[in-house]
Amino acid sequence: MLLYQQHQHTIWLHPQTAASFFVFDQRLLPHELKTVEITSSAEAASAISNMTVRGAPLIGVTAAYGLYLATLEAPQGGMDAYIAQQAALLAATRPTAVNLHWAIGEMCKAITSATTAADKIAIARATANQIKADDIEMCRQIGVHGLSLLRDIHERKQGATVNILTHCNAGWLACVDWGTATSPIYHARQAGIPVHVWVDETRPRNQGANLTSFELGQQGIDHTLIADNTGGHLMQHGMVDIVITGADRVTADGDVANKIGTYLKALAAYDNNIPFYAALPHSTIDWSIRDGIKEISIEQRHGDEVRYVTGLHNDALTHVRICPPDTPVANYGFDVTPARLVTGIITERGIAAPGNLKSLYV
Amino acid sequence: MLLYQQHQHTIWLHPQTAASFFVFDQRLLPHELKTVEITSSAEAASAISNMTVRGAPLIGVTAAYGLYLATLEAPQGGMDAYIAQQAALLAATRPTAVNLHWAIGEMCKAITSATTAADKIAIARATANQIKADDIEMCRQIGVHGLSLLRDIHERKQGATVNILTHCNAGWLACVDWGTATSPIYHARQAGIPVHVWVDETRPRNQGANLTSFELGQQGIDHTLIADNTGGHLMQHGMVDIVITGADRVTADGDVANKIGTYLKALAAYDNNIPFYAALPHSTIDWSIRDGIKEISIEQRHGDEVRYVTGLHNDALTHVRICPPDTPVANYGFDVTPARLVTGIITERGIAAPGNLKSLYV
Repeated sequence: MLLYQQHQHTIWLHPQTAASFFVFDQRLLPHELKTVEITSSAEAASAISNMTVRGAPLIGVTAAYGLYLATLEAPQGGMDAYIAQQAALLAATRPTAVNLHWAIGEMCKAITSATTAADKIAIARATANQIKADDIEMCRQIGVHGLSLLRDIHERKQGATVNILTHCNAGWLACVDWGTATSPIYHARQAGIPVHVWVDETRPRNQGANLTSFELGQQGIDHTLIADNTGGHLMQHGMVDIVITGADRVTADGDVANKIGTYLKALAAYDNNIPFYAALPHSTIDWSIRDGIKEISIEQRHGDEVRYVTGLHNDALTHVRICPPDTPVANYGFDVTPARLVTGIITERGIAAPGNLKSLYV
Repeated sequence: MLLYQQHQHTIWLHPQTAASFFVFDQRLLPHELKTVEITSSAEAASAISNMTVRGAPLIGVTAAYGLYLATLEAPQGGMDAYIAQQAALLAATRPTAVNLHWAIGEMCKAITSATTAADKIAIARATANQIKADDIEMCRQIGVHGLSLLRDIHERKQGATVNILTHCNAGWLACVDWGTATSPIYHARQAGIPVHVWVDETRPRNQGANLTSFELGQQGIDHTLIADNTGGHLMQHGMVDIVITGADRVTADGDVANKIGTYLKALAAYDNNIPFYAALPHSTIDWSIRDGIKEISIEQRHGDEVRYVTGLHNDALTHVRICPPDTPVANYGFDVTPARLVTGIITERGIAAPGNLKSLYV
């Protein structure tokens, strides 16, 4: 997508050496666009855990390139043990994101399938490149399928603007290109359908305020930033036509784990007869579990993410404390929206009701 | 209640001159405790509109003392016209808060009932003092009634801690003493019932983070600050026993207008069979309307409240911007929770189902 008028991906291999890769430090956006070079698998793990990169698909691709770098670092004769060790390190960075584990699994399978070190390096690089290319194509397909929903609303509204509410950043900055929740929106714009996006700021880390409003603005998409508390009121007053979010993990029965607060928006959508969709590639689906509320472990993050807010003050990134010092805090990263509140799941294979997800993958 | 170990009210007349009154600048809390002297009705109006004081009951008492100051300021022979003018100024400060209009009405009725200027001044002062005293007593009674709900939960849980979730600040800082939503909590603590409060931070102005966590900490009440997105997850996992909020306006049929985001918490409580109560004095009830969603006009506030977050940085109150400059923003101050989601209304007269509110006031 566009970043200051340039078409960019969120992650790319060093074009000359192929011995490192580049990402944007997303903690500095929208205030500063800083490219970071990742030169080792340990750095890749840090970039995931400290949220230099974030977003389930991008985390997966980052881990894939991290394991490719691990093949370059491995001690002679100790490749498989080293890969297993670095895979465990990468897997431990974010417990909730299932694509991370999926991408690591794909990489390990490919690397162990080769015998010589040179072959392992070559297949690791090819597999990571393929995971990246697949992510772009999957996001594009999600957009093509999701476009049909927005076109239907546009026709029903006799040409009026389609109002979409989204939570967190499931945009191209969370992926490699297109995004998941945003891909239908970008495709609708290309198809000439007028769209407007309500952007939840998404406390505590404000990925909506920081990232989604930034990336929509960069593509010239009409949008309005709101506090997370606002969506219910908008829906009561007919100002939202559809909710589209991403997902961090979806169960076989269609329960959707996504950024904390998604469940509240799904409840409001349900209460106001507004369709609620989650958009995601197959790697987000965890076919091994059914009941998301019981079976998905929810990451708890540091309380300072709630106690402090980060933003720009006098051209410098600044942290301000919004509560008394040492206020006790609970900081759950995700919640689970039960399938009964989900109208449909938009994937690269098409759209299915949550209870019918399997039908897309037979 | 306690403020740094001292018992305090949030508003008090100058003890010597009675020609001004004092409030705390609540915009600086919890970082700084600053007492502000209000010396004119125009200053009282500013203190309300710029949110030096906030909270529906405290706004009402502030307007009452503001009109008392207006009786001191009025030109000779022009008292009634001046009072009408200042009443209109005060009424325009916050359109959603019904107690503001109620308090102004009581003051105007009292002032016009007297004939001489001296009598008008005397009755204005007595009426404002009475509105303040009544607020304290109503909040105390709300606590006495609400205590029964917490005691029942405590008994049902066989002595385990009662977990209350609250939104915004409906604490004593929003009133004169006790608070509305917090009064049952403070009464439960006095009765030896162990309580723990989940405090919604309450974006965009963070009254939960700034004020509720501060005032609960000052009273030594166990509490945990959370992002507004978190309540649904807690409720899904049995970590909330009851939701108690305040209200800015309640209709005759029991629809509850309160801080934006209240509706989302009520939906989550309903979805998880958790009781949802609003606590409020009778002055919050607007008997003239029934359908809150259709009939209550919702205040829209400046977009910078969403674009910027205020907090402490290097011992100075600092505003940080969390989104690209000039990001379009919508900032609705309140939402309406329909009566069907409300388990009961706690008032100074007792507790009633929302559809049965009138029974308390016959």
